[in-house]
Amino acid sequence: MTRRAFVASLAAAAALRPMLVQGRAPRVDGAALRRRLEELSVFGRPDGGTFASGVSRVAYSDADVQGREYVMKLMGGAGLQPRIDPAGNIFARRAGGDPQQRPILFGSHIDSVPSGGNFDGDLGSLSALGVVEACDAAGVRTRHPLEIVVWAHEEGVAFGRGLAGSRIVAGDIKPADLEQTWNGIRRADGIRKIGGDPDRILDARVSKGAFHAYLELHIEQGGNLDRSGTPLGVVEGIVAIDRYDAVVTGFANHAGTTPMGERQDALLAASQLALAVRDVVTSEPGRQVGTVGHLEIAPNAPNVVPGTAKMTIELRDLSSQKLVQLAEAIQARARDIAASTRTQIDIRRVSENPSALASSDVQSAIVRAAESLKLESVRMPSGAGHDAQMMAQLMPMGMIFVPSVAGVSHSPKELTRWEDCTRGADTLLQTILQLDAM
Amino acid sequence: MTRRAFVASLAAAAALRPMLVQGRAPRVDGAALRRRLEELSVFGRPDGGTFASGVSRVAYSDADVQGREYVMKLMGGAGLQPRIDPAGNIFARRAGGDPQQRPILFGSHIDSVPSGGNFDGDLGSLSALGVVEACDAAGVRTRHPLEIVVWAHEEGVAFGRGLAGSRIVAGDIKPADLEQTWNGIRRADGIRKIGGDPDRILDARVSKGAFHAYLELHIEQGGNLDRSGTPLGVVEGIVAIDRYDAVVTGFANHAGTTPMGERQDALLAASQLALAVRDVVTSEPGRQVGTVGHLEIAPNAPNVVPGTAKMTIELRDLSSQKLVQLAEAIQARARDIAASTRTQIDIRRVSENPSALASSDVQSAIVRAAESLKLESVRMPSGAGHDAQMMAQLMPMGMIFVPSVAGVSHSPKELTRWEDCTRGADTLLQTILQLDAM
Repeated sequence: MTRRAFVASLAAAAALRPMLVQGRAPRVDGAALRRRLEELSVFGRPDGGTFASGVSRVAYSDADVQGREYVMKLMGGAGLQPRIDPAGNIFARRAGGDPQQRPILFGSHIDSVPSGGNFDGDLGSLSALGVVEACDAAGVRTRHPLEIVVWAHEEGVAFGRGLAGSRIVAGDIKPADLEQTWNGIRRADGIRKIGGDPDRILDARVSKGAFHAYLELHIEQGGNLDRSGTPLGVVEGIVAIDRYDAVVTGFANHAGTTPMGERQDALLAASQLALAVRDVVTSEPGRQVGTVGHLEIAPNAPNVVPGTAKMTIELRDLSSQKLVQLAEAIQARARDIAASTRTQIDIRRVSENPSALASSDVQSAIVRAAESLKLESVRMPSGAGHDAQMMAQLMPMGMIFVPSVAGVSHSPKELTRWEDCTRGADTLLQTILQLDAM
Repeated sequence: MTRRAFVASLAAAAALRPMLVQGRAPRVDGAALRRRLEELSVFGRPDGGTFASGVSRVAYSDADVQGREYVMKLMGGAGLQPRIDPAGNIFARRAGGDPQQRPILFGSHIDSVPSGGNFDGDLGSLSALGVVEACDAAGVRTRHPLEIVVWAHEEGVAFGRGLAGSRIVAGDIKPADLEQTWNGIRRADGIRKIGGDPDRILDARVSKGAFHAYLELHIEQGGNLDRSGTPLGVVEGIVAIDRYDAVVTGFANHAGTTPMGERQDALLAASQLALAVRDVVTSEPGRQVGTVGHLEIAPNAPNVVPGTAKMTIELRDLSSQKLVQLAEAIQARARDIAASTRTQIDIRRVSENPSALASSDVQSAIVRAAESLKLESVRMPSGAGHDAQMMAQLMPMGMIFVPSVAGVSHSPKELTRWEDCTRGADTLLQTILQLDAM
């Protein structure tokens, strides 16, 4: 949506609001949301565990299939008719009042990483259903159809994020990709297992402009909201991620017979490079991050001076341009380190994921929705990837974050307090009503 | 031997010399030494390889058995009767002229690391035989018996250096050690395979004072002699080795959602610790070395801030006291690093090997031997471990080093020039004659 269109729609929104509310303000049923998060957590729960034991509901697993069936049964119970697209994504539509209007799409995913938590994805998926039910309960008829989506294979555990269900919808798929195998499962068979149709995979694509907007409620997966005590984050965009491989080549030698001054120690060079990454990234203001998360040295024996070190350097920021500048500064530091340690350092970019900016109009709608609920909010980037970044290619996109206690995620210890879950779901609802008026 | 005894023996040596030489000075046959090094290299040579392809003659392997048979056949050809002790060490004695004198022991080993070189151990073993043959050829009858030894299982590939044949001779063995298995081989069966007798293993022990002295010719395995162009090294002792395990505990977290200031990055702490080890070790004069050769981080994924790092810290010097001081300084640095990175660092000593000092009298004998050959020599510590360090517990010990080209060892690229091999063998011979006079 353009800013002009948005401004023009404000009057319409004001005019429509009385009709929408019909006496009482719609609210998501927090108790039902909690009960469903607990019920869904059973699928993929460790044997003998509890809700707090986390979940392993990897895409295409039996637990994934069971969780999806549970969610589709809930949709049916809410009077919706779920359908599975060829990529395995679940959609369910509630009709709108104005046949001219395109649907508002919202939802998340229910697959998890191994030993993951019960909020990542689940909260946004089940809140989406809660929004529809809240509209039903309050007798709210939106102008736009409301379309719930539960994305398939978001976590990228099985076949890498490059083959997420939302990416297929965005058109980034080649039929050959379906031949990939993981753990003995062909991708095509995985998609078939969850009800998709790999033979018609290209039919899963959605054209630009087919929807009015996309909204996703998600846990922050970082500790910013929790630390500052802010209940809501308004996502400005999903950061760009540039990943580099660095290879340090020194000379492996006997740890007893090689004097300190004669060494070409690849680990000492790699250590300096890891520290340089941190120094470069933190040397200017901003929320950019840089991580050396993977490091392997060879021969990796206590009595041998390391001869080679291989490491990854991952840089994230909303601005791709900033990432390029950081990488240049790191390269310059690497040249100095290589010279002083008499090693060779080769740094090569291996992948780049552009940032996906949230629509400023959708961000404004979220802020107004929060204000209507008397909830504080703060704008922030999403450092993690989400299905929303694919949707940003097709329609105006926005995301709502709620606090992750201590910032823990992808862990059984992942926790978002129940009141924060309900606040997030209500904000999702109010934002949809704002967008419906636009 | 005490200094007083040594001084007293000088006169005797002077008196004996004419009788020993009998007209022409004994010299080791350099051409035969080379030929035998080349012939021995066949056992364990890679398929289709050449001498330059190196060797894999791991202790207790078929190649080891074949190499030992080759050496014993050479001994027989020289008129010696090789015998194998219960530990699998090969001994061969040439009688001396004075029944009151104890044997002079000298030799090395012929087992190798996987993909090792053809000089480490082999040179000292075959030169020992060359020394005996040179005495025969020159008609030299020594006062002391000459005892060649080829130690079993020096490299410690199969069962760790803790069970080397020379260590058993020094009495550091428990029968239970023989139950260890490696690659499906019981230690006892390995010893039996090479002709030893595990049932009598304690009979391999040699009592203190049973030999006059121990001498070993070996390649340096470092680059000091090669760099300085010095043909001979007189070993002052074999360094003490203290090994520590360091565990850095931070907090694994999402690389996208965890701001730089909130991280507890175990790799950044480990990097600082590796650099601190180098700084502490190089901050004072001396030939001490410190190495972080092994490092593993977890979860070791490009998109996760490292939560733990495990590393080894190995310190070597002739002085054990210096090693303790270095470790204390490293511990102090680790405390600062832990505090500034908000991680926990635990450093624990896991092994200590005391240094083994060479006898100053034997060192002097080597220096005089080199002078008699008009060869320059330099005193130096051995940073690598050798069988000689066990023998230092039983008798006066000395080692002669010859240059390793570029300091390379434990590699097919290991190389000592033929003329340096011969110089080393002749120095071994002349030193034995010096010791014989003492």
